[in-house]
Amino acid sequence: MSVLPEVLAANADYAADFGDKSELALPPARGFAILTCMDARLDPAKYAGLAEGDAHVIRNAGGRASDDAIRSLVISYKLLGTKEWFVIHHSDCGMEFFTDEVIRGLLANSLETAALGPDGFHDVGTGPGSAEGDYIDWLTISDQETSVTEDVRRIRNHPLVPSGIPIYGYIYDVKSGLLVEVPTATAAGTAVSA
Amino acid sequence: MSVLPEVLAANADYAADFGDKSELALPPARGFAILTCMDARLDPAKYAGLAEGDAHVIRNAGGRASDDAIRSLVISYKLLGTKEWFVIHHSDCGMEFFTDEVIRGLLANSLETAALGPDGFHDVGTGPGSAEGDYIDWLTISDQETSVTEDVRRIRNHPLVPSGIPIYGYIYDVKSGLLVEVPTATAAGTAVSA
Repeated sequence: MSVLPEVLAANADYAADFGDKSELALPPARGFAILTCMDARLDPAKYAGLAEGDAHVIRNAGGRASDDAIRSLVISYKLLGTKEWFVIHHSDCGMEFFTDEVIRGLLANSLETAALGPDGFHDVGTGPGSAEGDYIDWLTISDQETSVTEDVRRIRNHPLVPSGIPIYGYIYDVKSGLLVEVPTATAAGTAVSA
Repeated sequence: MSVLPEVLAANADYAADFGDKSELALPPARGFAILTCMDARLDPAKYAGLAEGDAHVIRNAGGRASDDAIRSLVISYKLLGTKEWFVIHHSDCGMEFFTDEVIRGLLANSLETAALGPDGFHDVGTGPGSAEGDYIDWLTISDQETSVTEDVRRIRNHPLVPSGIPIYGYIYDVKSGLLVEVPTATAAGTAVSA
């Protein structure tokens, strides 16, 4: 069963009650951006109180400060005027449960979905696999405070990021819904030393 | 005025009524992923009917199939078992209003936010700028149907993407809230020829 009919039905309901959202402007009304994880349990609009039109939301596996996330943040600031940025990782992140070596080995064996057992991921597929995973840095995480701190630092020190923009580092707790500050990460408009 | 106190107050309200969301599992319950734009007007949870725990959401400037988006999608499928993917760009996207040449010129002049006039973006900052923008492919868009089609094709043909996964191509209309299919993009589990 495809999810497609459910998604389109939900979309029709949303559009039927669209109201004055058709008048929203392109630049974020509240002038900020959030970089966070793609994890299904996270809804940044809900956990940070965003209405449509308020803020840019950038999401990838881990909420990492990848080159692509930085591309998006620079567009957000330079062209669309955001003035504050949040980097928000979260507890129980899937990126903690494997390493580059693990996912590369799994992909070399088979492209199909692996099973997660008490001893980690193991393959149930029988191929074909691909060695292409060897060429990707999967940006896995061993500790959330460290990953948030490193990612804020990478953004802060990027040559296209102005030194004055505050960058807040937080961890979202999937058990409570709370945002917990990472004090060593938050960089209120001054350079974080490496 | 920082948005930080507002965001933390909204988060406290959300967490105060967190309910059984603390029991959600890591793998997406409805087994799909959406790749879409960071645009502030888009709320994928609302426009596609997602509750917390349902689906992975990947977002960047344009909703483009960047290397980092593909990293995230491969993790979504290989480790967390999603079985259908959506690529959703949108009307009135900021990525249509500049080119690599434009943003590189603006960044070389100043890192500060540019103004958008009837004749496009122009700088109001006075430097310092950086030539680092020359080394980034900004993944701008000239036509949404083309960008969706190209991005679905890129994902479909990636060596780490299994041939059987359906990839749906849509454009979100910011004036109506409706998802409009791009028929030339949608690839229901068979290879799209280049």
